[in-house]
Parts: sequence; structure tokens; C-alpha cells
Amino acid sequence: MKDIQSQFDSRRINIKKVGVKKVSYPIIVRDKSQKKQHTIATANLYVNLPHEFKGTHMSRFVEILNECRGEITMKSFSSILVKMKERLNAEASHLELEFPYFTKCEKNGRDYVANYKCAMHGSLLKEGNLTLSIDVPICLPNFEKKQERFPGSMGSWGTVQVSVRFNQFFWIEDLLELIEKSVERELNETFHNTSGSLSVESLSKTVASGLEDTEEIEWFSVTAHNFGDDFSTFAAVKSC
Amino acid sequence: MKDIQSQFDSRRINIKKVGVKKVSYPIIVRDKSQKKQHTIATANLYVNLPHEFKGTHMSRFVEILNECRGEITMKSFSSILVKMKERLNAEASHLELEFPYFTKCEKNGRDYVANYKCAMHGSLLKEGNLTLSIDVPICLPNFEKKQERFPGSMGSWGTVQVSVRFNQFFWIEDLLELIEKSVERELNETFHNTSGSLSVESLSKTVASGLEDTEEIEWFSVTAHNFGDDFSTFAAVKSC
Amino acid sequence: MKDIQSQFDSRRINIKKVGVKKVSYPIIVRDKSQKKQHTIATANLYVNLPHEFKGTHMSRFVEILNECRGEITMKSFSSILVKMKERLNAEASHLELEFPYFTKCEKNGRDYVANYKCAMHGSLLKEGNLTLSIDVPICLPNFEKKQERFPGSMGSWGTVQVSVRFNQFFWIEDLLELIEKSVERELNETFHNTSGSLSVESLSKTVASGLEDTEEIEWFSVTAHNFGDDFSTFAAVKSC
Amino acid sequence: MKDIQSQFDSRRINIKKVGVKKVSYPIIVRDKSQKKQHTIATANLYVNLPHEFKGTHMSRFVEILNECRGEITMKSFSSILVKMKERLNAEASHLELEFPYFTKCEKNGRDYVANYKCAMHGSLLKEGNLTLSIDVPICLPNFEKKQERFPGSMGSWGTVQVSVRFNQFFWIEDLLELIEKSVERELNETFHNTSGSLSVESLSKTVASGLEDTEEIEWFSVTAHNFGDDFSTFAAVKSC
Repeated sequence: MKDIQSQFDSRRINIKKVGVKKVSYPIIVRDKSQKKQHTIATANLYVNLPHEFKGTHMSRFVEILNECRGEITMKSFSSILVKMKERLNAEASHLELEFPYFTKCEKNGRDYVANYKCAMHGSLLKEGNLTLSIDVPICLPNFEKKQERFPGSMGSWGTVQVSVRFNQFFWIEDLLELIEKSVERELNETFHNTSGSLSVESLSKTVASGLEDTEEIEWFSVTAHNFGDDFSTFAAVKSC
Repeated sequence: MKDIQSQFDSRRINIKKVGVKKVSYPIIVRDKSQKKQHTIATANLYVNLPHEFKGTHMSRFVEILNECRGEITMKSFSSILVKMKERLNAEASHLELEFPYFTKCEKNGRDYVANYKCAMHGSLLKEGNLTLSIDVPICLPNFEKKQERFPGSMGSWGTVQVSVRFNQFFWIEDLLELIEKSVERELNETFHNTSGSLSVESLSKTVASGLEDTEEIEWFSVTAHNFGDDFSTFAAVKSC
Repeated sequence: MKDIQSQFDSRRINIKKVGVKKVSYPIIVRDKSQKKQHTIATANLYVNLPHEFKGTHMSRFVEILNECRGEITMKSFSSILVKMKERLNAEASHLELEFPYFTKCEKNGRDYVANYKCAMHGSLLKEGNLTLSIDVPICLPNFEKKQERFPGSMGSWGTVQVSVRFNQFFWIEDLLELIEKSVERELNETFHNTSGSLSVESLSKTVASGLEDTEEIEWFSVTAHNFGDDFSTFAAVKSC
Repeated sequence: MKDIQSQFDSRRINIKKVGVKKVSYPIIVRDKSQKKQHTIATANLYVNLPHEFKGTHMSRFVEILNECRGEITMKSFSSILVKMKERLNAEASHLELEFPYFTKCEKNGRDYVANYKCAMHGSLLKEGNLTLSIDVPICLPNFEKKQERFPGSMGSWGTVQVSVRFNQFFWIEDLLELIEKSVERELNETFHNTSGSLSVESLSKTVASGLEDTEEIEWFSVTAHNFGDDFSTFAAVKSC
């Protein structure tokens, strides 16, 4: 078989991104309480391609993913980026993973399993640019009549999406706690003062304030979404 | 070109359904206030296939759709079913259309456009079995502090999905009014009595009660969904 | 707190289905080569509700799911159905699980991970009605120039969806093998005889023929989908 | 009612984006052969918000959309951006519209309706930055046995997504023709030379070459996707 990918291409067009998308893959991530958590990622892997190459070796992307045996830590994440760059002769490599992350909690003597949409994005252009994202669902509490969420929840108010870059290791659980504390503060304030209705603008600012003072966080972005019946409203804040 | 579709197939296996799915198609439906409404349908068209046929003429499905020039009424709907059955030598034909339906309303001197997910399903096996379905979004009102929905809606509580079979012509707008009156009654009752929280069970029963007494309705089914932060709860009721 | 759910409801309306939908939940299923496979299910759990009850205890559904500790076998599946029926005072209980299932294979000295969409549906009305469903993706081979799938696959021709009811234990891997053998037979026949193009009608019949002679299979349904650029075509076959 | 939105906010946090998302709205766009085409857009409208404001007037976004009566041209698009900036006291305004666009064509004496996913994105920061995007589906031809696409298409190979900025008015139909000519050239070359398999890398470069020489095009980006059975491969090219 001829190696078409390495042939010379005379058209002077650079390919900015080339790779594989939506690879469904079982992974294991670190879990604060249980040490390891099995989950399933949707992965995108891609590199740039200088104009002199005709194509890339698509099969190598999945090969590299196989080599890490599904254990995704900050270390293995980086090593995947390095391998991609090397084996595909690229100048830049990119890895995006999206996965559900489950936490267990106990309320009124019952176990609950909560489910968060997480994502890890990283590139090998500059150091330390791994971004962790998480979606925290927001449910309005029924303050007057304290009751279980079932039956008859107040519905799904919306979500807060938070993306962060850390300068050292940080548990997903600790990030969740940080966010949920801000959300609770905002909910309490909203329902005990005059306005009575939670706004995306104020919520995104409150969550941002809570992240600003955390030393381990280098950069963050916060977006609050409020689901309406016909469409959503949203507000986004970024650290400078 | 050989007509492969009409060839004899010796395997004695009947095909229950054969056809096309997810055809995106611009249509025109009747609108109570504006006479005509342009919208876009996603259509499924299929027939059964007796075991002696090798295949069907897939291109004829879209051909028949083209012939009605996009005007979908109860009459043209039936004529599509008849044409499918005839031209494809089938015993049964089925047509499913899904489309957004828009209504305009005025609140506080401002125009609003509301958007409902509608569906029409019909088969040519027995008479009069055209089913119309509609999704009505439910937003919890903020009873204490009367205010505009923007900003800071209470979120999306859920939906009520209603499917009906009529014995005579009935406007989509009139069905909507019937449903929304029941929803409002349930919301009022919920927030002015002890429970304080809307349940899918009670809501589906109340909407069903409102449909039971309408003479033009031969058959109905009601499903209420309550969107939670992690999952939904639901309750479904059918007329017997 | 008042137990609203058990209150008497004087409206004489039966609720056919009431429960929870789209619960995301980590589960463990049996795997022929590795014994156990960690995956993530989307679960629907529901029961019927006699008209004299006002509502159901929604929180009990997730409680029952928690009790099985995520291990889903044919046995635990049945025991979930039994528990739902008992604790919710229902006449019928229903459980639907959808999950990705991964298999490993080796081609040309390289490991590949294949991903199948699986579903298990069961009800407690009559015995032995657990249905297993699986989606097998179909990629057209490039018969003339034998080559790796990367780069430049022929695209995604479509899928074959198979649902079966077994009368005894049967591995997912063995069902997959059964289906893929039929698909291969059909592909070979198609590309070595005159027609040259794979049809949904013939493919669904060939896969059905392959299932008919398997003793462990009590009932089956096969649907072939061919993805076109604008819409899909499909054909469905059921065992009588 | 108090005007909460205009209140002063002492936290020094700027909101980068605030607005409404996924507004479903019937629109009319210009059509080369039929002058006007009715379609349905999904719209996002947003502005930035200086840190001294507490919130924005969410209802004004939809109000402004209502004022253009659904007629979307390059002129009305700009005027929506201007109105948003003015009425919401913002420094920047953004409008994103996504809609299906239908074209009619005749093949072998039959009418066909083709459906393209289009998008228009624009911002009011600098002049002339309206971007038009279009998705062109790619189906592999069966070169050996010329035949109708039905039944038994070769499946859905993938898509080419093209985004462009024009320096003068340009019909969607003319952009489509430009892209489809390049795709055809690439398909012909692929199937008449040695490689025999279409690659995302080469396809994206060929489409890019076709756009480079068009004077009306100021800037473009091209991404080719090849749908595999388990995941997609892709390559992206941008004009500098």
C-alpha cells in the first residue's frame, strides 16, 4: 500500500485542524471519594498540518488513545498531546474530552446520584493550558414549603457552566463545592430580598466572584443559562 | 435499467414498513387568524410490502409529496395516503409530519410569537384516523410578585403533550385554547391550596378532563412532563 | 409532611404510565471476554396508576435503582421490576435501559474499540418479556482496493437495528456475531452480483433469515436504515 | 415595577455576553429563483454589558426581532445589530441566525427539493463582518453503475461546511454552485486516479482553492467531515 498521507502536496494550503471527532471511548478518571470512576468520554483529537503534506495518518489518533488504556489524569492527558505532536509530525496538537461525572450524596438517609457534564480541553502550544469545564444544573427551591424535590419539582431553572484553568491539581468535587456554595448564596439572597427572581446576570457575577479569590485558579469563564418555555436567556463572564 | 424493485423474492418474509424518514420539507398549513402559515415539516412516509416483492420504489414517496405542492390540509393529507397505497401496490400507507406552529399574541401592548411543536400522524387502514399532536410548554408563574417573564423566569417546568383524533375540522388554535385553559385552572388550584407544587399526575388528569367533554374529540392521550435538574418525571392518560 | 401521593382522587381517570425518564446512571453489565463492563445507562422507570390514587412516590423509583448497586443482569433486571410493582402498589411495572456497549477487537496487529448502542426493555405483566436491542453500524467496504478504513472511509451507509427476546441467557457478543455474519453475507452478495447497490429491503430480510433459525430467540424485529444526504430510507421486518 | 436592570452594580465584573438563545422564529430570506423563501430560524441575540449595569432588558431582544417583520436581508440584519446596540446601551451587539434553505432542481424530469443548513453571523464592532455559513452534504456516486440514488444509496459520506465573508451581495445559490463544482471536481479526480478514496484533507483543500479566486469573497473557512461508522474524521482550512 502506498503511503498517500506523506506524499508531497504542491497546493500551498495549510490545514489548520485535521483529526477525528466524536470518538466514544470508555475512560477512568480520578474521583475524590472512590479513587477511580469509570465513565465514557466523547473525544476529539486533532493536529495542524503544514501545507507540504498531503494528508495525515488518521488511524494513529485512536492508536494513541488506546495506549493510555483509558486512564485519564492530568499526566496522561499531557502525554497524549505530546505523542500526537510527535507521531503526526505536527506543530500543534489538541485533545478534547467530554464525559458525565457522577457524585454520590446522602439526603435524609437516602443515597442520591448526581450527574454533571464535564469536559477537559487541552493543546500543546504553550504550557499548562488544560481547561476543565463543568455544567451545574440549577433547580429553584420551594422556600415556603420545605419538601422533597419529588414530586412536583419547580422545574429546571437552568445551568451554570464554568470553565477553569488551574495552576495545580484540583479535585472536580472541590470545584463543584465552590460553585454550589456561590449558587446557594445567590438563591438565598434572591428569595429573601425584594427582587424575588433569579437573574442570569447576577448569578454569573456571583459565581465569578467566588472563583476570583481561589489561588489555584489561573483563569475562568462563567455562563449562566435560564431555560424559558420558548428560548433561553444567558449571561457570560470571563476573568481577564 | 432493470426494475429490481418489482422482482420476485422467494424468501417468505413480509416487510412491515418500508419508506423514507426525516425528509425535511417546506409546507403550508391552515392558520385561524392569518389563513395560511408557512412552516417546515419533517416527514416520514412508509407502506407495508408483501413478501413476494423484492423492494419498493423509494423515489415515488418524495414524488407524491412534491405533487401536493406543500399545502397540507386534512384533505391533501388523505390524498397523499391514497396515492402512496396505490402507486406502491401496498395494503397500508402511513404518513407522519412534524412541524413548528407559530401563533402571535399581544401582552401589555407588545407582540409575542409563541412556538408549538405539532405533529400529524395518519394511516390508510381504517377511516378517520388522523391524529394531531401538540406540545404545550409549561412555565410556573411567579404568583407573589406579578412581573414580566423577563428577566429571571422561573425556568421551564415542563410540557403537556396532547394527541387527539377529531370527528370534524378543528383549529389548532382552538385545541391550544382548550389545553391552556385547563393548565391555568390547575396552576391556580395548585398555588392557592395547600400542596403548593404542581404534579404531573394531577396536571395530566385535569387536561384530560377538559378534553373529555369536547364533542369533536373522538380519542385523546395526554402526557405531562416535569423537567428536573437530573431527569424528568411524567404521567400519561388516555381516553378509553 | 402530608402524604399527598396516597390521597384519594375522585376523578375517575386512570394513569397509564407514571414515573421517571432519562435518569443517567452508571451500570455494570456482563461482558463475554472481560466478565464485567462499566458503562452508563439512560433509564426510564414507570408503572401504571389506578384512578383512585392521587399520585405516586417518584423518589422510590431512583431508590430501587440505587439498591441494585448498578449491577444489571437478567436477574437484577427482573428484581427491579418486581420491587417497582410492589412498592408503588401498581399492576404493571416497566424498565427501559439504553447504554453504549464496547467490544475490543484486533485488526492487523492493532487494537480497535467498537461501540454499539444497546437497549434492554422489560415489563412485569407477563413472564419472560425482556427485549434486548442493538444497533449495528454498516460501512460499505471498498472491495476493489483493499485498504484500511482510514483515511477516506466510504462513509456511513446506515445501521441495522435488531430487537430480540431470548428464552435463555445469550451473550451480547454472540448476538453481534450472528448479525454481522448476515450483514457480511449480504454485502458479499451485493457486490459480486449484478445490482451493485445494497438495499434496505434485502438487508433486513437477510438479517431476519439469520435470526429465524436460532433456537434461543423467541421473537425478533429487524430494521435497516440507509442514511442518504437529505433523508434516510428504511425497511422493517418482524417475526410473527 | 422597579427597573432592576438599570440599577447600579458595585461588583466590578463586566458581562461579556448577555442575551437570548434558541429563539425559534419564522423568517423570509431572498431566493434567486423565487425571490422570497419562507423558512424558520433559530436566533441568538446578545450584547456586552459594562460592569456598572446590574442587568439588561431581555424582552427588548425579541421586540427588535419583531420589528423587522421576519424579512431578513443584509440590510435588515445590520439594522437589527444597530438597534440592539442602541436600545440596550451596549458597546457591541451580536446576531446569529441558523435556518434550513431549500432549493428546487429537476433531474430526469422529476422535481427534487434539496435542503441546506445555513447560518448568518454578524457583530457590530467593525464594518462588514457578516458571515454566511452553509453545509453541503456529500454522497459518494456509484460510478460504475449509473443509477438513481434510490434505492440503495452509497450512504452519507459526510459534509463540507463553508463559511464566507463577502464584500458585496452574493446569492446563496451561487455560493452553492461554486462549492458543488469543486466537490464534483474532487470526486472525479478521486475515482479516476489511483487512490480511489476521498480524503477530508484533499477535499477541504480543493474547495478552498475554488473560493480563493472569487473576488467577492473576502475571507473563508472550509471544514470537510467524513462520517465513519463509529466516529468522524475532519480537516479544516482557513484563508489567511
